[in-house]
Amino acid sequence: MNILVLAGDFDSQKVSQAFKKLNLPTTNQLFFDGRTMSDEALAKIDIVLGWDPKVVPKILNLPTSRLKWIQAYSAGVDYYPLSRLAQKDILLSNVSGIHAEPIAENVIGMILGFYRGLHTAAINQSHQKWQLPTSRPQVITGKNLVIFGTGHIGTRIAELAQAFKMKVTGVNHSGHPTDQFTNIIAIDQLNSQPVRDADIIVNTLPLTPQTKGLYNHTFFKLVQNRPLFISIGRGPSTVTDDLIAALQAGQLGGAALDVTDPEPLPENSPLWQMPNVIITPHISGLYQNYLKDAFDIFLKNLAQFEENGTLIKNQVDLKSGY
Amino acid sequence: MNILVLAGDFDSQKVSQAFKKLNLPTTNQLFFDGRTMSDEALAKIDIVLGWDPKVVPKILNLPTSRLKWIQAYSAGVDYYPLSRLAQKDILLSNVSGIHAEPIAENVIGMILGFYRGLHTAAINQSHQKWQLPTSRPQVITGKNLVIFGTGHIGTRIAELAQAFKMKVTGVNHSGHPTDQFTNIIAIDQLNSQPVRDADIIVNTLPLTPQTKGLYNHTFFKLVQNRPLFISIGRGPSTVTDDLIAALQAGQLGGAALDVTDPEPLPENSPLWQMPNVIITPHISGLYQNYLKDAFDIFLKNLAQFEENGTLIKNQVDLKSGY
Repeated sequence: MNILVLAGDFDSQKVSQAFKKLNLPTTNQLFFDGRTMSDEALAKIDIVLGWDPKVVPKILNLPTSRLKWIQAYSAGVDYYPLSRLAQKDILLSNVSGIHAEPIAENVIGMILGFYRGLHTAAINQSHQKWQLPTSRPQVITGKNLVIFGTGHIGTRIAELAQAFKMKVTGVNHSGHPTDQFTNIIAIDQLNSQPVRDADIIVNTLPLTPQTKGLYNHTFFKLVQNRPLFISIGRGPSTVTDDLIAALQAGQLGGAALDVTDPEPLPENSPLWQMPNVIITPHISGLYQNYLKDAFDIFLKNLAQFEENGTLIKNQVDLKSGY
Repeated sequence: MNILVLAGDFDSQKVSQAFKKLNLPTTNQLFFDGRTMSDEALAKIDIVLGWDPKVVPKILNLPTSRLKWIQAYSAGVDYYPLSRLAQKDILLSNVSGIHAEPIAENVIGMILGFYRGLHTAAINQSHQKWQLPTSRPQVITGKNLVIFGTGHIGTRIAELAQAFKMKVTGVNHSGHPTDQFTNIIAIDQLNSQPVRDADIIVNTLPLTPQTKGLYNHTFFKLVQNRPLFISIGRGPSTVTDDLIAALQAGQLGGAALDVTDPEPLPENSPLWQMPNVIITPHISGLYQNYLKDAFDIFLKNLAQFEENGTLIKNQVDLKSGY
């Protein structure tokens, strides 16, 4: 097989070094610099690992392309041309699952950063002032947590939240019950007590036509308890202007955003300077073994793909988009 | 009984309002402004709630003082004149136990703030820059956590750390085993594998002659894994200059300090501006119901004290200091 390894958001040298260490059978030929390859060479690529907006669309447009499978480095695959892949019968797999621990830890860290005054303390620290927070720190024990999405990530957040004795409601497509959640609510029945009473709301949903703009003016008016709104899913699920308005109007007590719309968040966005807003630059899924664990999924898929052209793990349904 | 209610570090109006709402039996007479009371009036005080350096020592020096019991608002009571209280047969009780949840949450928040890059993100945020952290965020799962002190606070930290699947070692006086800890080490046997291998060290110990200066040059040389050092106990357990030297020499990976020596931390301390140091102004024990829960302990003690002159809860051993 001809395998094109793209670096995605990672350092390209690190990716190629780490990938070479995997010692794939020599029946595979590896390519690392898609941008300098000829059309002829690109057409012979069977498998792509990762994404490059200057390379993957080009391959898809080559009439003689042999491309059959793309393995993404991410869980969300909204940035791939899904209908085009479906049309051309190209398989797509993601690395859903490996982000559960880092993102869940990140979300708990954001909740504690907000409720324990740690975010405010970090800001005060730069002024070298021993300054009490203006609002008293709170314990998160007993708080109402509503998690949108009950997949790997939502479930791990719920597990950790149970250790803190929070009351955990999950929101999913069908309202089907799952472990770790006290309540489950269907996404088309948001006007319900647990959502209205939320102290903390966490968005873990993938970006799909259904979730685009879900957190908008109407939603922020629904919640009654001035909740902390956390998003680690995808930026465009939130209508940025509506979020800013809800923060300014006090409908929300605060926000913690690892994803924004657009991304990067522009320097002139008022979100940066709001004292009750925590912004991280789309890093909540990162951790020390990310590449290794992503390669593990790729290798398992590769073994089966070589045998029968199918994938064993994390194949994306190109219609639903996750 | 004549009860003098001092505000301690709290807002004096809030304290007196909240205390009056307790509706104590009218056999008790309440006093709130110790600083304006005459010596004669102060000598008639039977019970003091809280601490004021301008009032309590004065009462202790009145030859006709009737003072029999002091209820502290804090867990640590190192700032009371313990031997003087012992000499005068005055009981002292603390509120040990009520801080377990807020402090444990704070410690986990500090760990996540450090490992997930949230502290760095808060600093970057003030520059309105979407800037990746220079060191990759890590998951705390699997990290080696060593907790000094296996009381209420240490145990609750250990419980939460277990949910994150950390390996938890406790250090206590005798090395006696307790639940929630994988290992227990005696404080006089610090040169042991779990301490040397610590990724994170948390000090929850009270300040006593034995713990003063415990975290010094020798201790910081012992640890091999560039751990994060967290202190939420008392500032003087750490030798500040040795801590700064250990951070500068890279023996420690970082520090998260809710207590410092001296307190407040002076504006010219180099700790403020170190990017791997988190400082909070002695707030880790605070939470929304602090006063209410402290009063609950006081009321339970008061009931028994009125009956037979003894305390039912949280009496401090004036010799050991906790």
